[in-house]
Amino acid sequence: MTQRTVLFVSDQTGVTAETLGHSLLSQFDSVVFSQMTVPFVDTVDKARRVAETIDRIAAEEGMRPIVITSFVQDEVRATLLKCNGLVLDLFAAFLGPLEAELESQSSHTLGRAHGMVDATSYDLRIEATNYAMAADDGHAMRDYGKADVILVGVSRSGKTPTCLYLALQYGIFAANYPLAEEDLETNDMPESLAPHRAKLYGLTIEPARLRQIRLERRSQGRYATAQQINFELRAAQALFKRFHIPYVDTTHSSIEEIASTILNETGLERRVRA
Amino acid sequence: MTQRTVLFVSDQTGVTAETLGHSLLSQFDSVVFSQMTVPFVDTVDKARRVAETIDRIAAEEGMRPIVITSFVQDEVRATLLKCNGLVLDLFAAFLGPLEAELESQSSHTLGRAHGMVDATSYDLRIEATNYAMAADDGHAMRDYGKADVILVGVSRSGKTPTCLYLALQYGIFAANYPLAEEDLETNDMPESLAPHRAKLYGLTIEPARLRQIRLERRSQGRYATAQQINFELRAAQALFKRFHIPYVDTTHSSIEEIASTILNETGLERRVRA
Repeated sequence: MTQRTVLFVSDQTGVTAETLGHSLLSQFDSVVFSQMTVPFVDTVDKARRVAETIDRIAAEEGMRPIVITSFVQDEVRATLLKCNGLVLDLFAAFLGPLEAELESQSSHTLGRAHGMVDATSYDLRIEATNYAMAADDGHAMRDYGKADVILVGVSRSGKTPTCLYLALQYGIFAANYPLAEEDLETNDMPESLAPHRAKLYGLTIEPARLRQIRLERRSQGRYATAQQINFELRAAQALFKRFHIPYVDTTHSSIEEIASTILNETGLERRVRA
Repeated sequence: MTQRTVLFVSDQTGVTAETLGHSLLSQFDSVVFSQMTVPFVDTVDKARRVAETIDRIAAEEGMRPIVITSFVQDEVRATLLKCNGLVLDLFAAFLGPLEAELESQSSHTLGRAHGMVDATSYDLRIEATNYAMAADDGHAMRDYGKADVILVGVSRSGKTPTCLYLALQYGIFAANYPLAEEDLETNDMPESLAPHRAKLYGLTIEPARLRQIRLERRSQGRYATAQQINFELRAAQALFKRFHIPYVDTTHSSIEEIASTILNETGLERRVRA
């Protein structure tokens, strides 16, 4: 396998460069990437030092590093461009066509992308996160009225991280309710959920994967036995079908995918665009 | 203000297109963007339908929509490109130069970027998230040994969302410890933190902003009074300085910025690159 060094460099947090970079790099199976992020490179001086580091790596490895950047400031970008790396810059590639289309100059302002100092959106994300934590695992059921969506599923089907991701990324108020054995045995709608049927969204998962997850957590007792897991998953799906609760299988999905699927299928509006 | 419609379209979750798009759009102050995300457009047929929607919007608004995309599949992208929108595609712009540099064809595979079906990284993120929740607000202090970092600060300085973001985005084990009045009055290192001094990282915030946040939460009692807030913040900073705990002011920062700053300054390695 070839090995290549990749740097994500930005005059801001680097989150955009990282996200873009991971998408691109994941398309190259045959290369192993050694990755590093260098955020807050917001002066020409800092850019010069990073360029020197890149040149040193290039000399040491005999191959130029791949440098994925998102510079808002033209002079800083220009300084880094002089390095001996393959520099792919987001803003350089796309701001030109956008300026032409919008007939407007971009502001080249720092602290916008991600660094958006937007108290309202910060507050919303915090509020949604606090809500997700308070309404985790069937707590705060009285507060289901506030929920945008209530995730329903058996223990370890992915409810908690999905709720938190929806909160942090999109400011969405997501509660979750774990289907307990009592719920599953009756095959009836749990009482506390009944008034909120329209908000329910189910998560399911393949038995083998769930078993693996549960074994890591608690290998004793019935919790991680194949029999118990099969019973719970079958009963949960029966409940979803009986009450027409939409659901998604989380087995082969990342947290991002599960969250996107839920937003897409429920038509829920993002409250925040992070 | 001009108003323009923007679509983020992807054959995957759309997270990459959204992240890239927000960074770009945030550079145009004078335009109001009406945004929508269309994920999982993974067949030529679906792309054709989205293209029709875009054409309809263009006709209705008399201006072509801005379409920010991240298509892995060439045929799907090609179908969408026929629409009457300004299409800016991530992969089209950068995969070519990368293929040349790496002397390797990209795999054009779905379910990689973000959709990465990578059980290890999924498990790590979940584990880190569970840890962050268990070790929130000074709980699970016995488990501080497991922490990569322990955030320290007064109530509502931003500890919880930052810990969760570090967990979900980077798989980092982040605990947090709220500085209570007892801690602040003694100006001494809280006992449970003493063995973990090297892992501590402080959060501070401007008094006016903290007051605003606390008032929304609880307007009664001392909690949100200017006097109490000034005392707590001054005492917390004195503690940080006395014990050489690095700290960051969260007042004007997004959650992403706070997390990036902590990673950057501590040199902590990301366990997962989401």
